[in-house]
Amino acid sequence: MTLNDALDPLKLLLGDRLSLSSAMRAEHGANESYFPQMLPDAVAFPESTAEVAEIMRICAANGVPVTPWGAGTSLEGHALAAQGGISLDMGRMAAVLEVLADDMLVVVQPGITREALNAHLRDTGLFFPIDPGANATLGGMAATRASGTAAVRYGTMRDNVLAAEVVLADGRVIRTGSRARKSSAGYDLTGLFVGSEGTLGVMTELTLKLQGQPEAISAATCAFADLAAAVDTVISTIQMGIPIARIEFVDAATAAAFNAYAGASLPELPHLMVEFHGTEAGVREQAERFGEIVAELGGADFAWADRPEDRSRLWKMRHGAYPACLALRPGSMGVVTDICVPISRLAEAVEETRKDIAAQGMIGPILGHVGDGNFHAILLVDRNLPEELTRAKWIAARMAARAHRMGGTMTGEHGVGMGKRHLMRDEHGAGWEVMGAIKAALDPRGILNPGKIVPGAGEQP
Amino acid sequence: MTLNDALDPLKLLLGDRLSLSSAMRAEHGANESYFPQMLPDAVAFPESTAEVAEIMRICAANGVPVTPWGAGTSLEGHALAAQGGISLDMGRMAAVLEVLADDMLVVVQPGITREALNAHLRDTGLFFPIDPGANATLGGMAATRASGTAAVRYGTMRDNVLAAEVVLADGRVIRTGSRARKSSAGYDLTGLFVGSEGTLGVMTELTLKLQGQPEAISAATCAFADLAAAVDTVISTIQMGIPIARIEFVDAATAAAFNAYAGASLPELPHLMVEFHGTEAGVREQAERFGEIVAELGGADFAWADRPEDRSRLWKMRHGAYPACLALRPGSMGVVTDICVPISRLAEAVEETRKDIAAQGMIGPILGHVGDGNFHAILLVDRNLPEELTRAKWIAARMAARAHRMGGTMTGEHGVGMGKRHLMRDEHGAGWEVMGAIKAALDPRGILNPGKIVPGAGEQP
Repeated sequence: MTLNDALDPLKLLLGDRLSLSSAMRAEHGANESYFPQMLPDAVAFPESTAEVAEIMRICAANGVPVTPWGAGTSLEGHALAAQGGISLDMGRMAAVLEVLADDMLVVVQPGITREALNAHLRDTGLFFPIDPGANATLGGMAATRASGTAAVRYGTMRDNVLAAEVVLADGRVIRTGSRARKSSAGYDLTGLFVGSEGTLGVMTELTLKLQGQPEAISAATCAFADLAAAVDTVISTIQMGIPIARIEFVDAATAAAFNAYAGASLPELPHLMVEFHGTEAGVREQAERFGEIVAELGGADFAWADRPEDRSRLWKMRHGAYPACLALRPGSMGVVTDICVPISRLAEAVEETRKDIAAQGMIGPILGHVGDGNFHAILLVDRNLPEELTRAKWIAARMAARAHRMGGTMTGEHGVGMGKRHLMRDEHGAGWEVMGAIKAALDPRGILNPGKIVPGAGEQP
Repeated sequence: MTLNDALDPLKLLLGDRLSLSSAMRAEHGANESYFPQMLPDAVAFPESTAEVAEIMRICAANGVPVTPWGAGTSLEGHALAAQGGISLDMGRMAAVLEVLADDMLVVVQPGITREALNAHLRDTGLFFPIDPGANATLGGMAATRASGTAAVRYGTMRDNVLAAEVVLADGRVIRTGSRARKSSAGYDLTGLFVGSEGTLGVMTELTLKLQGQPEAISAATCAFADLAAAVDTVISTIQMGIPIARIEFVDAATAAAFNAYAGASLPELPHLMVEFHGTEAGVREQAERFGEIVAELGGADFAWADRPEDRSRLWKMRHGAYPACLALRPGSMGVVTDICVPISRLAEAVEETRKDIAAQGMIGPILGHVGDGNFHAILLVDRNLPEELTRAKWIAARMAARAHRMGGTMTGEHGVGMGKRHLMRDEHGAGWEVMGAIKAALDPRGILNPGKIVPGAGEQP
């Protein structure tokens, strides 16, 4: 790597939008989870696809790593420049380029956040439904194949990115997909770049599917005496085909965290948080049917949030679960991990995980998007006690192994990043080699977000 | 290519399940559309993944092409052994391996047809919704990323294949995806193999999402004075968020074909054929709202099919559109082509296509899955008049160019095969090179279905 050879042309291209300052490098070397600081050598702030392409050409010529950066909210260290080089901050490419209301599509630059996008769409009657906890950028969400609370109804980023503009490792610019809602015209490149965590290309434009604002919305929380009853409620709801828009699980510890942090007054028991979208009559019918299932399984303390401001408070609380849980142990650091299992194994998976956490004497709230079979543990560790981190990682590794044993996946939505790459062979077997072959074909010098997803030198048989 | 070196070990492996007979080769050298006969050198009938893997190892060692074969119903010559070699008939791998009712999944071998699968599922309360016109195999449907009449509600094969077992070009066997409903664990290999038309690997097992049989179903046909009113009805229905399960367009010529071939008595006008799935109340509400849109746009002649046998007759007629249209000109051959455009451009795209067909003095019914913006033209040509084929191809090429101009795709569900490979650069630009790079990485000798999808020697800059 000849970083210095790259810096002059990069400076010429970007002027003061190339920063080598300690503060800027530190900001882009930090992460939301337990990974140590990893400083990039410089931070670049491109303002156009052409600039991204030129940055890639310069870095390719000099073998300099490029790691795209969105909002820095990913949880497995995805955006860390593990091998130094350039942190490519997409924050200045955050425009809404076109709202195609008739086609229910929007074209955006990758640096826009999900909240900014929905604020922009407010008067159109349309919204973008994918909502990971953090106010992430759309580019970051596409890169990690994010989902969130509404995936049970509207799908994940895989289902909602229809087309993309991508800058390849060598600076070529390609467009994948189209504005048509489906296609059989060759390999699904859009689907390949979504979830590739910046290792195959830099997304510089996204065409996203939008949803119509539902005529009617109804939301509620509901308490259960135990985890099994809550999970059984989820399973019955899905199997009955109730088109629920959100069905979230939080355990007793999370409920306690909401009470302490967000001023809620929930019984300190496992809860479901649900939302129904549809016509007035449709929502009423869904809510009634769900209520019958809950009653049958012993749920109680239904609290309805029909007014927009109450719903908004409810989901703001839910999206703030991470800081709320961290506050259960002031000063602690979160090891956040997620797995996704077939729904038939969900209760068992959550219960076994809860037992592991208890056996380690750890505070570790469990919550998740259980309509998808996806749940999280937020393991609170003292950052000054390395053995606590070791124990948290042991719990996380057991969760991943559990997911594999149950026919599931070691991450439903957080991604691989630096935290789970060592488990890729367990999940994919020889499929991991196929990923490595694709990476080598598209980025032969390995400059795009090196150290993530694919096998490194010596790891491939 | 040293075919002869491969035949001995293949015979040893498969015995009389390797056929070199003229009849068998002719059967696997035929196609449903206008392509000339292309004979494979031999037809293999594997019965297990291990046998497929061994076939691939033998063929890889000898540079012998392998072209997977399902039901032979694809429309762009996908399954033709364009460079000879082995036609890999998956018909003996047609088992349902596991029905996972609680998870609403089924695991099948690729040779099972969609009708056989749904017959198998009949007593489970579940069904598989993807229904291309033909009774294709699930493997073939996955390979072409098929969809059909219910994609507007349930998605395409892209959305409904959750996991796969794939034999690679060198005989390695990988498993992609899992039984979890979503994952962020690395590149979406399942999505890459779906739609790759047998050029990247041979799918030997598929895990498919199932749907619950709706409590209530209602279906209808409805006539319109002109195409624009029918298409505007579709657009309004989608934009109002009515969760319609099927919304199919057939033009006046297709209606006439149904009358003549299927004994229907439809007014010879453009029609929509619709179906609603849901609860009793939900279906009633959907039908009412749809009825209001139709009334506003001047639709008439509503014919409801509420009894299962009437619905079955309706959709059987729709799925039989291809032979019905062929019968409009006895002895003719069909050049079937499909494009998919943003729904806002649908009326314009259909109308321009209709004018092209009329200007050529050709019989060419137009019909399609208009809820997705996807429609087909069935261009009837005399197989003894090459200039008719030339004119049909001209119309098809204009349709593809039209789709591109309107921001759509040259094929919504039929795929690329041999018929549209020459248009891949128009659609994908440098993205076509990326597809070529992936192909070269996974199948360096180019033995898997050569001549399809990716650039051939000399075509890449």
